[in-house]
Amino acid sequence: MLPTTFLFALGAGIGSVTIAPVNSAPLGFFDSGVGGLTVVRAAQELLPAEDILYLGDTARLPYGSKSPETIRQFADEDVRFLISKGVKAIVVACNTATAHALPQLREQYRVPILGVIEPGVDAAVSCPNVERVGIIATRGTIGSHAYQHALALRKTGLIIHGQATPLLVPLIEENWIDHPATRQILKSYLYPLVEKGIDTLMLACTHYPLLIPVLKDLLPAEIRLVDSATTCAEHLKTELTRLDLLNPEARDGTLEIHLTDLSDEFESLAKQFLKKSPGRIRRAVLGS
Amino acid sequence: MLPTTFLFALGAGIGSVTIAPVNSAPLGFFDSGVGGLTVVRAAQELLPAEDILYLGDTARLPYGSKSPETIRQFADEDVRFLISKGVKAIVVACNTATAHALPQLREQYRVPILGVIEPGVDAAVSCPNVERVGIIATRGTIGSHAYQHALALRKTGLIIHGQATPLLVPLIEENWIDHPATRQILKSYLYPLVEKGIDTLMLACTHYPLLIPVLKDLLPAEIRLVDSATTCAEHLKTELTRLDLLNPEARDGTLEIHLTDLSDEFESLAKQFLKKSPGRIRRAVLGS
Repeated sequence: MLPTTFLFALGAGIGSVTIAPVNSAPLGFFDSGVGGLTVVRAAQELLPAEDILYLGDTARLPYGSKSPETIRQFADEDVRFLISKGVKAIVVACNTATAHALPQLREQYRVPILGVIEPGVDAAVSCPNVERVGIIATRGTIGSHAYQHALALRKTGLIIHGQATPLLVPLIEENWIDHPATRQILKSYLYPLVEKGIDTLMLACTHYPLLIPVLKDLLPAEIRLVDSATTCAEHLKTELTRLDLLNPEARDGTLEIHLTDLSDEFESLAKQFLKKSPGRIRRAVLGS
Repeated sequence: MLPTTFLFALGAGIGSVTIAPVNSAPLGFFDSGVGGLTVVRAAQELLPAEDILYLGDTARLPYGSKSPETIRQFADEDVRFLISKGVKAIVVACNTATAHALPQLREQYRVPILGVIEPGVDAAVSCPNVERVGIIATRGTIGSHAYQHALALRKTGLIIHGQATPLLVPLIEENWIDHPATRQILKSYLYPLVEKGIDTLMLACTHYPLLIPVLKDLLPAEIRLVDSATTCAEHLKTELTRLDLLNPEARDGTLEIHLTDLSDEFESLAKQFLKKSPGRIRRAVLGS
């Protein structure tokens, strides 16, 4: 596999074989599981003509509790899979993988690779009154300090509180969003941040947008919620425009989901995340 | 790799090279994470002279939510790793892997392989008054019906209620055993079983023995708790005796832990599970 030369081959055509131009190639997204579909949904709204190929590494989920070294290895295999499918750009639709693996992936592959952290951080500091920022995320994302560094680089004097919230992904994946236990766990995680006077709460995991209704109910109204899905989709549109990679056709793009482990639960969760049926789901074999 | 011939090579010696006899070879245990250490602890008490080699597939945990096909693939790789280390027998110290993979593993490999389900079921039906049995386990174990079938085979007329309790492993792995949210989640899972009049509750996941104090507090005193750790260790002793595989030396056995992903959290949890320090933990690379 020669991933770095792939885009050139795609764009140029070889001999008499007709090869689709890069612009009509799909966008690749990956996450450990279902969470990245919040980013897909936002991207579909902004970029309706684009085909999307989604990889969920459900056989090895979750990523958030695993070590940086292991996350980098998994993310590398995910990217190789998407490149082998001919994607024109890749979105790391997982905060833990963005935090630990994005710099290495960008060094290693020539295909444009976008993460979810920088767009979210830009959105958080876009409000001039922001002073105290809380971040909720997996243990891996918090431990990486990627959000804390990115925020500090963009605005001096910010007070930043990171809170690992490792039980939220299992609760969301079990579809216990409205369960009293979820509220109790959210209170345990969030009230210390509220007591510290945060004005902004960053939902630094692509699963967390599903908790927004519960969060709005539990938190004081003046705390601003920032999630990375919409901002990442906007950043993706800007980057595709800048790189002249947009699909110019007037068409409805497709969504093709590949998972490393198939389950009925994924399908019902995917419906919730996408607000529509995910269509036929395929089994992905990585590292081949 | 020739796993089926390995034990013969171990026992026979090759040329002038001195090879340890099979009886002094270590026992192999595997689980997706830390849970199997409850079985290790019970085995260490009953079989103090035995060396134990433990594999935790922490890079891909949990197993309980994944498909039978994926579990079988993971369990096969786990067994191959242990065989490559020269173990004389293997304990599948994970209920989900026992439920989905044990028959296939026994067909494929000649080394004795024991699971956690049959000893637990034998213990459950050993009480003559048992009539209504509740089973709590991962979604994978409940969905496999392995416990339900094994119980029904041993005693006719039993009323059996399986309850998937998928959030318990994340809660235990986060060390939230005494948290009010854990009690609330346990109530959600268990009270329907209590209402159905169970007299026996099987803790059909090797993580669950850590919940016994909370369970005793939440459940009526007349409900008998059966966990698989102690019964599995007793079965292991019986089998090693029958196969003439016991280590006859008067010595203190060692414990060597290998993990596919290293984390600080594992070490602190392992201390709780083993009631002592786990010693130096090594990184395992599977499938090589």
